[in-house]
Amino acid sequence: MPVITLFTDFGLSDPYVGMMKGVILSITPHVSIVDVSHYIDPQDLCAAAYLLDAAYPYFPQKTVHMVVVDPGVGSSRKIIAAEAGGHYFLAPDNGVLTKIIDGGDVRTLVRVENPEYFRQPVSRTFHGRDIFAPVAAHMASGKPLDGFGPRVCPVDLSRLELSAARLTEAGELLGEVIAVDRFGNLITNIDQQKLLELDASEEGGNLCVHIGEHRINGLSASYQDVSAGGLLSIIGSRGCLEISVNSGDARAYCEADKGAPVRVARIRER
Amino acid sequence: MPVITLFTDFGLSDPYVGMMKGVILSITPHVSIVDVSHYIDPQDLCAAAYLLDAAYPYFPQKTVHMVVVDPGVGSSRKIIAAEAGGHYFLAPDNGVLTKIIDGGDVRTLVRVENPEYFRQPVSRTFHGRDIFAPVAAHMASGKPLDGFGPRVCPVDLSRLELSAARLTEAGELLGEVIAVDRFGNLITNIDQQKLLELDASEEGGNLCVHIGEHRINGLSASYQDVSAGGLLSIIGSRGCLEISVNSGDARAYCEADKGAPVRVARIRER
Amino acid sequence: MPVITLFTDFGLSDPYVGMMKGVILSITPHVSIVDVSHYIDPQDLCAAAYLLDAAYPYFPQKTVHMVVVDPGVGSSRKIIAAEAGGHYFLAPDNGVLTKIIDGGDVRTLVRVENPEYFRQPVSRTFHGRDIFAPVAAHMASGKPLDGFGPRVCPVDLSRLELSAARLTEAGELLGEVIAVDRFGNLITNIDQQKLLELDASEEGGNLCVHIGEHRINGLSASYQDVSAGGLLSIIGSRGCLEISVNSGDARAYCEADKGAPVRVARIRER
Repeated sequence: MPVITLFTDFGLSDPYVGMMKGVILSITPHVSIVDVSHYIDPQDLCAAAYLLDAAYPYFPQKTVHMVVVDPGVGSSRKIIAAEAGGHYFLAPDNGVLTKIIDGGDVRTLVRVENPEYFRQPVSRTFHGRDIFAPVAAHMASGKPLDGFGPRVCPVDLSRLELSAARLTEAGELLGEVIAVDRFGNLITNIDQQKLLELDASEEGGNLCVHIGEHRINGLSASYQDVSAGGLLSIIGSRGCLEISVNSGDARAYCEADKGAPVRVARIRER
Repeated sequence: MPVITLFTDFGLSDPYVGMMKGVILSITPHVSIVDVSHYIDPQDLCAAAYLLDAAYPYFPQKTVHMVVVDPGVGSSRKIIAAEAGGHYFLAPDNGVLTKIIDGGDVRTLVRVENPEYFRQPVSRTFHGRDIFAPVAAHMASGKPLDGFGPRVCPVDLSRLELSAARLTEAGELLGEVIAVDRFGNLITNIDQQKLLELDASEEGGNLCVHIGEHRINGLSASYQDVSAGGLLSIIGSRGCLEISVNSGDARAYCEADKGAPVRVARIRER
Repeated sequence: MPVITLFTDFGLSDPYVGMMKGVILSITPHVSIVDVSHYIDPQDLCAAAYLLDAAYPYFPQKTVHMVVVDPGVGSSRKIIAAEAGGHYFLAPDNGVLTKIIDGGDVRTLVRVENPEYFRQPVSRTFHGRDIFAPVAAHMASGKPLDGFGPRVCPVDLSRLELSAARLTEAGELLGEVIAVDRFGNLITNIDQQKLLELDASEEGGNLCVHIGEHRINGLSASYQDVSAGGLLSIIGSRGCLEISVNSGDARAYCEADKGAPVRVARIRER
């Protein structure tokens, strides 16, 4: 059974998500539709880009990932369908596919403009229902991407400036918090690979993490490594550094939110 | 695969929606269950009626739409099953089907009272689980409506007084905000047809929309027609007039909510 | 089609639930995944235990119920798979299965530790994705429990101290509020059976319910038995005493929340 995932900022109170599912099921009745998130902050393109990049690898090959965070709906912005890394993607050309396109394994990339696959009439405010949903349904049922429109080059697509962690001249890693989850975990853009470059010991015992006024020595192997209420740093489930409080909320503890700078230094041996 | 949609005020924290799905899957394992909304305001029958009317046409023919906004649960209120416009509906007889029944294409209408299709024992507070879910499952699997109870006449059903936009003697359209979505868009009951009667030019350039102290000249073709933060009016995805702020929140901008009056006038040619 | 239910404290904004579904569908594409609740209060094991016990019986036999409320993730806490009452359960060994295990119909109980069924590498913070999801997928596809690890004895499992209603020497029932739903209904741990022992008349007309300063005479047969805004007590859909306000919110009315004591006395005949 083919799979379609949904990433939107529509929330779950309004009928928008249901309408899109109705359109999909009208075209492709045998499909598993998975809501990854409908609570992306309204029109937060960077959050959508990070979320897509974090979640898509866990789905079966050939899954169609449909991103509808689309402040430019109804304007001249394009819609893009892509095949990359064995998955399919459908999104506005507003940068939400930045990490996918720049990931390097893009096989096919088309501009979706064949109205034969659109629901008619196409409304001015809800392409999710009238373009994305029917096109995703056809993608899931195996229609080749070239049927949806002409090929485009990766260089011609919109891109977001997604912050990347970087190594300073002083030999420290500078990154930032890119997401905060329901538990208050602060998820950074500093990945395990970069940490290993700073400290070859896999345990990270020689690393020191700084956020705001707080300083955390070493990486923990589990939340329980510190006592309840204690601050810790850990390699999280995205493979990136996270700052957490055991049985608590690191966002509140650190008074930090998305965008907060995080610095990782190597503890000097004395 | 048959489709059952759910419209409730149960929210998603409590186990109620899950229980209903369990009952449905126990009877009809091969079914797609789509949550349209579980965040209808508790016991807000008008909101449920509008939401159902907006969403159901996007689902496949023969979909079973199950509405459980049911403040009268356990009392003597009836339960109604209907076939209308190629779709099936199951709801309490409290008016939430008003727009469906008055839509004119009702083929079959029965009072659900055959306990053979109920889950036993029927609780006093949760007919969603004990009556609606099993009956919807049987409807989805193709059981004829007449098996659930006796036919009833449309005139015998409860109805809600749903506000309709009207043309004043001064030649203006008077309507109101009937829903506000997650983005703060103000959705009115003034449909495109009525606007066209006021201004034959499809673009709506001669129309002037008034809400509170705010006045909007002309209809926009997309959110981007005005600069970010600007107020606009547009034909929304329901085919009705909506008042929006480009990349912003019209509810906050206009300090308006459900029930706020909206007036549309024709700009006088001078 | 097999069914997997999810009980977590992950919320629906973060990608965690979607990731787990992706992993499940990668292993078992033909499965119905039902979200029972992802809004269990973070790390509230008692709430998870009550919720599971309330919801699981409504699902088809052989359903796999997967509970991921797991503050001990990454520590030495065990993971348990069980067959009981014709259903399958998968949860951390932290007590969330207390009511299932003590329910008396446990057929098989194993400690999940065969890494052959885990997603590799297993992260330190998200066993829901890397252990629970793939194991549940294999359980749903019919893999015998013994393949996941060695048998364990019920006595060796962690248990929660779940409050039970009790009969006092004065012949009164003492219980407490164990959950509050979206409508503000106060759900107690006083079940119908215990009430019948106090008052043989099924209508409960001789019972008097006390919560805080409030006193409710008799049980209602439906919310409508009292006028709108009135306080009532009723046997709710879980088969337990609930305190409600007709068309209102008993939590606000009584200023009571989870843990609030509830007392039921027999009205003395004079």
